[in-house]
Amino acid sequence: MKVAIVMGSKSDYPVVQKAEDLLKEFGVECETRIISAHRTPRVAEEFASTAEEKGIEVIIAAAGKAAHLAGVLAATTPLPVIGIPMKSSTMDGLDSLLSVVQMPKGVPVATVAIDGAENSALLAIQMLSIKYPELRQKIKDYKVKMEKDIIALDAEFNK
Amino acid sequence: MKVAIVMGSKSDYPVVQKAEDLLKEFGVECETRIISAHRTPRVAEEFASTAEEKGIEVIIAAAGKAAHLAGVLAATTPLPVIGIPMKSSTMDGLDSLLSVVQMPKGVPVATVAIDGAENSALLAIQMLSIKYPELRQKIKDYKVKMEKDIIALDAEFNK
Amino acid sequence: MKVAIVMGSKSDYPVVQKAEDLLKEFGVECETRIISAHRTPRVAEEFASTAEEKGIEVIIAAAGKAAHLAGVLAATTPLPVIGIPMKSSTMDGLDSLLSVVQMPKGVPVATVAIDGAENSALLAIQMLSIKYPELRQKIKDYKVKMEKDIIALDAEFNK
Amino acid sequence: MKVAIVMGSKSDYPVVQKAEDLLKEFGVECETRIISAHRTPRVAEEFASTAEEKGIEVIIAAAGKAAHLAGVLAATTPLPVIGIPMKSSTMDGLDSLLSVVQMPKGVPVATVAIDGAENSALLAIQMLSIKYPELRQKIKDYKVKMEKDIIALDAEFNK
Amino acid sequence: MKVAIVMGSKSDYPVVQKAEDLLKEFGVECETRIISAHRTPRVAEEFASTAEEKGIEVIIAAAGKAAHLAGVLAATTPLPVIGIPMKSSTMDGLDSLLSVVQMPKGVPVATVAIDGAENSALLAIQMLSIKYPELRQKIKDYKVKMEKDIIALDAEFNK
Amino acid sequence: MKVAIVMGSKSDYPVVQKAEDLLKEFGVECETRIISAHRTPRVAEEFASTAEEKGIEVIIAAAGKAAHLAGVLAATTPLPVIGIPMKSSTMDGLDSLLSVVQMPKGVPVATVAIDGAENSALLAIQMLSIKYPELRQKIKDYKVKMEKDIIALDAEFNK
Amino acid sequence: MKVAIVMGSKSDYPVVQKAEDLLKEFGVECETRIISAHRTPRVAEEFASTAEEKGIEVIIAAAGKAAHLAGVLAATTPLPVIGIPMKSSTMDGLDSLLSVVQMPKGVPVATVAIDGAENSALLAIQMLSIKYPELRQKIKDYKVKMEKDIIALDAEFNK
Amino acid sequence: MKVAIVMGSKSDYPVVQKAEDLLKEFGVECETRIISAHRTPRVAEEFASTAEEKGIEVIIAAAGKAAHLAGVLAATTPLPVIGIPMKSSTMDGLDSLLSVVQMPKGVPVATVAIDGAENSALLAIQMLSIKYPELRQKIKDYKVKMEKDIIALDAEFNK
Repeated sequence: MKVAIVMGSKSDYPVVQKAEDLLKEFGVECETRIISAHRTPRVAEEFASTAEEKGIEVIIAAAGKAAHLAGVLAATTPLPVIGIPMKSSTMDGLDSLLSVVQMPKGVPVATVAIDGAENSALLAIQMLSIKYPELRQKIKDYKVKMEKDIIALDAEFNK
Repeated sequence: MKVAIVMGSKSDYPVVQKAEDLLKEFGVECETRIISAHRTPRVAEEFASTAEEKGIEVIIAAAGKAAHLAGVLAATTPLPVIGIPMKSSTMDGLDSLLSVVQMPKGVPVATVAIDGAENSALLAIQMLSIKYPELRQKIKDYKVKMEKDIIALDAEFNK
Repeated sequence: MKVAIVMGSKSDYPVVQKAEDLLKEFGVECETRIISAHRTPRVAEEFASTAEEKGIEVIIAAAGKAAHLAGVLAATTPLPVIGIPMKSSTMDGLDSLLSVVQMPKGVPVATVAIDGAENSALLAIQMLSIKYPELRQKIKDYKVKMEKDIIALDAEFNK
Repeated sequence: MKVAIVMGSKSDYPVVQKAEDLLKEFGVECETRIISAHRTPRVAEEFASTAEEKGIEVIIAAAGKAAHLAGVLAATTPLPVIGIPMKSSTMDGLDSLLSVVQMPKGVPVATVAIDGAENSALLAIQMLSIKYPELRQKIKDYKVKMEKDIIALDAEFNK
Repeated sequence: MKVAIVMGSKSDYPVVQKAEDLLKEFGVECETRIISAHRTPRVAEEFASTAEEKGIEVIIAAAGKAAHLAGVLAATTPLPVIGIPMKSSTMDGLDSLLSVVQMPKGVPVATVAIDGAENSALLAIQMLSIKYPELRQKIKDYKVKMEKDIIALDAEFNK
Repeated sequence: MKVAIVMGSKSDYPVVQKAEDLLKEFGVECETRIISAHRTPRVAEEFASTAEEKGIEVIIAAAGKAAHLAGVLAATTPLPVIGIPMKSSTMDGLDSLLSVVQMPKGVPVATVAIDGAENSALLAIQMLSIKYPELRQKIKDYKVKMEKDIIALDAEFNK
Repeated sequence: MKVAIVMGSKSDYPVVQKAEDLLKEFGVECETRIISAHRTPRVAEEFASTAEEKGIEVIIAAAGKAAHLAGVLAATTPLPVIGIPMKSSTMDGLDSLLSVVQMPKGVPVATVAIDGAENSALLAIQMLSIKYPELRQKIKDYKVKMEKDIIALDAEFNK
Repeated sequence: MKVAIVMGSKSDYPVVQKAEDLLKEFGVECETRIISAHRTPRVAEEFASTAEEKGIEVIIAAAGKAAHLAGVLAATTPLPVIGIPMKSSTMDGLDSLLSVVQMPKGVPVATVAIDGAENSALLAIQMLSIKYPELRQKIKDYKVKMEKDIIALDAEFNK
């Protein structure tokens, strides 16, 4: 099971890395690429049209401002594409969010919260868990642990 | 392969029906429910906690305004949850969009465009296609047909 | 007389603490909990369904981003629920505000300003003062003091 | 038990009437007034400063655009004030919402959704139910009925 | 000729002071007050209802968030009221702007830019210049100087 | 006493006419012009630079979208300029409002609500009333009448 | 001299046609295509990479929602690309505008107003007029005529 | 070949300088001016009406808040005008963007991203390249280099 993470700019890596880390924690192979929809359109096209045959099962794309990367990849690949709208420097991420989520009929992008890298990874894992039962179990364990952690925090806080 | 569509109000059905239709077109079994996160919280909880064992593999949730339905289901089920922000009567859907997409770390909702019912279905199918190769092929055919239709439209337009 | 304050994350405490302080200043008992609508949905459900019998008379819920906490509690409890939309890191609190205030018919949340913790406490006290006359008097005293303080500030400024 | 509803303009009545109807359904006495914070400031001041002694226990204020009515009443009365931001003709209600909800420290307004008249009434009833046990029971019955109605709708839909 | 500047909070003074300075530079008498529409409503009412007889000819009001101060004063005084929407801590001043500018028919507030203190003073001077010819001349001189300064800056920049 | 109303397009007249009517009602002479900042810049410049000598004392400018008209006139004339942001066809008037109100230091525009034609006239009259005592009295009468009308409406409503 | 107009959907044609008409009025050859960045990515790529050699000198692209078309063409062609953000059905065109204008460094799109088809044509003509003096003259004539028309309207209005 | 850059304030220079640098890198002559639409309207008018005869072929205008500069120049010159909306201090650049891009029919401004100085230069060069083939080649080289740089970054990242 393999996920590709594509980011539009190297400066997105501090956020994107959290997706990488979570995928590794769940034992999902992960390949991270720097590809720009606007500056390297041919690389984007080639990546999207060959992703499936390279064994990639889900694509995560992170981009900001007029964030076309996720949509451009989704136009070409039949794989599910998850979009992370990056908080942009001038519009607080609203431009990125609308550019990623408001896709026209026929070409969906599964959009997560602005800068929501961890959730992009979790969503990819949930998608993969349709096929891989071991991931489904790990998600359940993750949810249980998350619940326990907050219950412990609450108990500690009220001690 | 089975998808559940949950809508927060019966008035969402004219939009949601487009998701139903597309799922059927792809041969995916589909169950549509009216469940409100706020008005029937126990039904929502029960639905989410039993969805997996009932064979549901993806959940689509449509809701408007302070649209908590997708998030509430995602809190309980390990299945991937797709959220459709419904265009609300007073804020043009911006409230629905932000309520659906801005989920906190740990509980993702795969958000599509405002009123994007068809795309919610396509995204569910893409997720299922990770496991079911026949769906992958149908998606490819769908993309080819979509391309051909537009090329034909363009040719017709320029005749 | 007793108020419960629920926050979605421990990081909300520096803001929430102002509500705690004001409640104590008015002699209202206060219990503060860390409960997440999305990460601990069962705890949230249990808290909301037992709050009344535990003597809680008003619930204050603080959450950010897709802030479902107040709405989720209000879905289950018959008690009045006050929502504090937390200023989120990416959308300046607009996402939190809309997620808290735009509740559907049947399940109100009494929403105060973004990060408006003091006002959530004052509103809770105003609600309680319907029953407890001593609180009504304290609110009047508070309003008089607030007025005097500003008049004094103005006098000092124009000395 | 008595609630006053104040509307800034007679044109708000078709929305405000839904609050009136719900209050009556719950057996809560209700007085509806047309008072403008800007056009009749002295009436507003007099109303707010005498509401408590006239036996009013909660005030609901509905206004649009630069919607100051709820805040102006809350400045003078110690009673809890609920604000309904009216959908304005030019800004889709965003101006009304921000003008009602973003109150400064010391003077809260319990804000409900844009045009959320029913919820303003329910919220007033929840506040009153702190003192009046018969209202608490009616709220519980209302929630049960609401739940049953949706479950019946869902059953009917899936017949 | 006399202008009153009213600010809702002492923390507005660093911005408001620029209006004071400019008024003094034009030889216009100026009185600055701290009055809160919500915390000192009676002071606000008294100020507005006596401003004219005290010789004040224009009122400038600065307030943030649900910024009702300018509107509340304009409701009572027949004098022209200029509103400065203060940049608020959570909504970048959009809430203040809409609360100040979107006044209903019958009670105008002459709104300047967010944090636009200098322009509030200039606008007050322009209003006064309808009556006082010496101010009209000073405005013309101010405009000429402003033009010369920029032309000099441009010349210096291109030297 | 004379006011000029300038509109950027003849299609603004149904709104602008309300300002004309109110000015006439108050006995203020009024000249209405169609001048576009972008399509007739030389006419705009000539109008602004000669307005004072033609006896005009206040200018009202109505424009939509990237609404530069008020600012362009204010750049040249020393007279006070009132701006009416017209509700535009695509952005609900937010573009007009921001283009009119957010003027830089040195060149104020007294902005009223979106489509706020009556208030632009009232504001102009308030400005003129600094010089003309008969207008001040008429404003007071107008405010008294407005108050009486609402009190009567309220009485009628509660009969 | 030749301009290509590309629209993302045939439903954009009623708006786009105004650009066609204006180009023809100026004697500029014009080819209109239906190409979708998301549904026909290969056609888009081929169109953009061959536009220059086919004698096209400027490209106009109209698209709505997550409007990637202009950016996708600009990524591949060295020609100047003008973007028309189409008013979308759910977000009043704000999503289209931000998706078109907020392009990253290196790949500009010359953005005009929402639904601004005529201006896209005029801008294309202004670009071409750098090379073709006859177009420069026609633009001057157009500006003179536009000015005269408004002056005539104003004269007629004030007759 | 010559481009003029006009900025509304000297404080815009750190951003604008990036446009200057890029124009020089492409061998395009560039003149940078400080001209304010509001503070030096006559200079703006003179600049715009003489730009063509001074050999300027494209104008770039940078301004913030109620950013009228680009529109004011475009009203007078037949040359193509590119607008850079500057990120303003209070509205995150949304006011600047709408003031620049939402131009009325007849007077286009080619708008680039908020603070998009490099792209304004690239767009100017693309416009000039319609006439000057050597610039067309340089643009192609620039695009190739941009692509290579990202491919190298990606290779380095995945080493």
